[in-house]
Amino acid sequence: MPSTIGRPLRALELANEIEAGALTPAAVVDRCAEAIAACESEIGAFAALDIERTRRRAEAAADRLMRAPLRGLPLGIKDIFDTTDLPTEYGSPIYAGHRPAADAALVSMIDRAGGLLLGKTVTTPFAFLDPAGTKNPRRPAHTPGGSSSGSAAAVAAGMLPLAIGTQTGGSMIRPAAYCGVAGFKPSFRLLPMVGCKHFSWSLDTAGIFAVSVADAAFGAAAITGRDLRVDRATPAAPRIGLVRTHLWPEASPAMQGAVETAAKAAEKAGATVREITLPAIFEDAFRIHATIQDYEAYRALAFEYDHHRDRLRPLLRRLLDEAATVTPAAYDDARRTAKRARKALAEVTAEVDVLLTPSAPGAAPQTLGSTGTSVFNRLWTLMGTPCINVPGLDDPDGLPLGVQVVGRFAGDRAALEAALFVEQAIVRAG
Amino acid sequence: MPSTIGRPLRALELANEIEAGALTPAAVVDRCAEAIAACESEIGAFAALDIERTRRRAEAAADRLMRAPLRGLPLGIKDIFDTTDLPTEYGSPIYAGHRPAADAALVSMIDRAGGLLLGKTVTTPFAFLDPAGTKNPRRPAHTPGGSSSGSAAAVAAGMLPLAIGTQTGGSMIRPAAYCGVAGFKPSFRLLPMVGCKHFSWSLDTAGIFAVSVADAAFGAAAITGRDLRVDRATPAAPRIGLVRTHLWPEASPAMQGAVETAAKAAEKAGATVREITLPAIFEDAFRIHATIQDYEAYRALAFEYDHHRDRLRPLLRRLLDEAATVTPAAYDDARRTAKRARKALAEVTAEVDVLLTPSAPGAAPQTLGSTGTSVFNRLWTLMGTPCINVPGLDDPDGLPLGVQVVGRFAGDRAALEAALFVEQAIVRAG
Repeated sequence: MPSTIGRPLRALELANEIEAGALTPAAVVDRCAEAIAACESEIGAFAALDIERTRRRAEAAADRLMRAPLRGLPLGIKDIFDTTDLPTEYGSPIYAGHRPAADAALVSMIDRAGGLLLGKTVTTPFAFLDPAGTKNPRRPAHTPGGSSSGSAAAVAAGMLPLAIGTQTGGSMIRPAAYCGVAGFKPSFRLLPMVGCKHFSWSLDTAGIFAVSVADAAFGAAAITGRDLRVDRATPAAPRIGLVRTHLWPEASPAMQGAVETAAKAAEKAGATVREITLPAIFEDAFRIHATIQDYEAYRALAFEYDHHRDRLRPLLRRLLDEAATVTPAAYDDARRTAKRARKALAEVTAEVDVLLTPSAPGAAPQTLGSTGTSVFNRLWTLMGTPCINVPGLDDPDGLPLGVQVVGRFAGDRAALEAALFVEQAIVRAG
Repeated sequence: MPSTIGRPLRALELANEIEAGALTPAAVVDRCAEAIAACESEIGAFAALDIERTRRRAEAAADRLMRAPLRGLPLGIKDIFDTTDLPTEYGSPIYAGHRPAADAALVSMIDRAGGLLLGKTVTTPFAFLDPAGTKNPRRPAHTPGGSSSGSAAAVAAGMLPLAIGTQTGGSMIRPAAYCGVAGFKPSFRLLPMVGCKHFSWSLDTAGIFAVSVADAAFGAAAITGRDLRVDRATPAAPRIGLVRTHLWPEASPAMQGAVETAAKAAEKAGATVREITLPAIFEDAFRIHATIQDYEAYRALAFEYDHHRDRLRPLLRRLLDEAATVTPAAYDDARRTAKRARKALAEVTAEVDVLLTPSAPGAAPQTLGSTGTSVFNRLWTLMGTPCINVPGLDDPDGLPLGVQVVGRFAGDRAALEAALFVEQAIVRAG
């Protein structure tokens, strides 16, 4: 089956053209609208859309928007963030037609930065594993990944230049990898979660999808007012730690090859690459991610579980059934393990700038009945470190294979720069 | 002016009587209703009440409730927690009549533990400093403190045995001290904040008010399923660090005397007491509490500030006006300082079990135009450590003076036990 992809909407390019007066915010809305008209019925990336009003806002405030950090670019946000202007259903019929009383903090920050919220993107129900029907633009019989399915697919299909998602296990990096776009999960709480439906308050992390690493960095910089842009200078050659982790055998030969290809390309471009073997504590940390997630989910989703259990989808219902048995003692133990692992990570990675590791076990599985697995992401979510999916490599079948660059906590700028370096090296080695 | 206090509703006593079959949950609701009828019009502790339905629920489910951890006891919860059964206004006309679509996690946990939510208690608007009119049951011309004004006052007036509040600066410990009840602010995130209106996501901490330390510990244990009860054995004699902090001159002579009296009483009862002087990093940490709080508040309350600025009360409006200027760099610096201080605290307190320090600068000020100040609380909120206001001492004028016991992060059980020890020592020294 052919791919369903419009012309990619590159955020930086669009922003620069707007800044130069060569393009208006309304014209960008029109481009999104065209791509949406062409692709959305096939892909199903949006839970709600508001093209007409967004276009009117783009025209009415053009002068102000063109000078704002986001330059009036349209964005999508995963439908687990509260919006007053658009329905907020958290992917569940329990919340059909729900209109929250306030916008999420991140929605207000996008507004303050001069971004236009064009729509809510499809989330799996409550951002868990039950698939929501969105198709992968690169190959519609394949999953786009989850839980940020709509955000990744909308960017991959050229329907949006920027979209917000979240990750509790692997819900940013996995869909970015499956759809062949850049996904940036920043350090824990760099983007605020106020007004986002929580699954696990120690793990839920908002992030941003874009066509390329520099586009994602531009979006994150504009929204936060932080020095995160990486497009203004040639990135420095990073010291890379190639981390296979104990899960390496779970990566497909093609994915193993992609990581090695990326490492070689980076080395050829001037990076230093060394193999890093993680000590055993990280196997424990990987394992107890579930303990923390499940304990918190049983409480964060208590209202839905206690009052609407029958309306939960099967995977989530089963998870919460089992999560009820996680004890406070097991949870506290898990948190101590996580703390020890974070400390150990700083030591293990003292001599490198970033880690390089798979973004997913392989390319997007050929199914819409599963969103794939987060085995290569959970540990890094638990560590709270910035992670970037670097697109650019394909498997022999032509499906995207993402490689993951992992930075230091609070070292988001350096992580993005290293990811850009790897991305450019891959293109050059092409 | 006389005090407005009914017979105290001691949670443990009531729970034990219910367990023994000597009392029904409905009868406890009746006692609350009587006290509310007698005091509420004067005190103004409730934002919403649901006595009739709570009584019906208490009768209908009596058998199940009497075996549940909370034994069907009625509770109040600060009106910044979302409730589907009761209006949730966050203390602001912006949210007049607002009904959230889901209960906060803590509301569900109370329900699961067999507690009955009798009402929402008055919060200052968005839990900041603008007073909300609640009076101090011990002396109605005096403030009950804030922002958890209603929760502290309802327990102090004998209208509720247990009530939930939150603290971002000093909003648990200060009102507990001013009203002469126990207030337990647990370790950061021991109680979940999902569904609570956030002010500062790194600082906002839920806690519980009760008549005495053992009652508060019982409530926290029942809600969380954690081993926090301290009423089943004589508390061990703790090693206490008397910490005056650099703010000691801001404590009134009566408060300085109360802390010293508590220390002497504890020593006489078998505790060891040593003076601890905090290094200079803690003055920095105290100072940067505001940086973290303000930076986050400007984002957490972005919707209200951007869309309803004119309807915000003056203190909050001014705070947010100024908070707009806090830079990400200043915020990141502040977080690093907090992290260093947390590490230093573990070292400085290695040889003691808990710290003893003032809960507030003095007794409740004679005004309803201010909720007092959190200078003696902010540092400990930032540290994330468990804090307990121990009641039992009065100033020469007969107003309560609370002393504060501060434990180690995640050492909530030990902190409560030490607080009970101090509380009993004060009574014995009488």
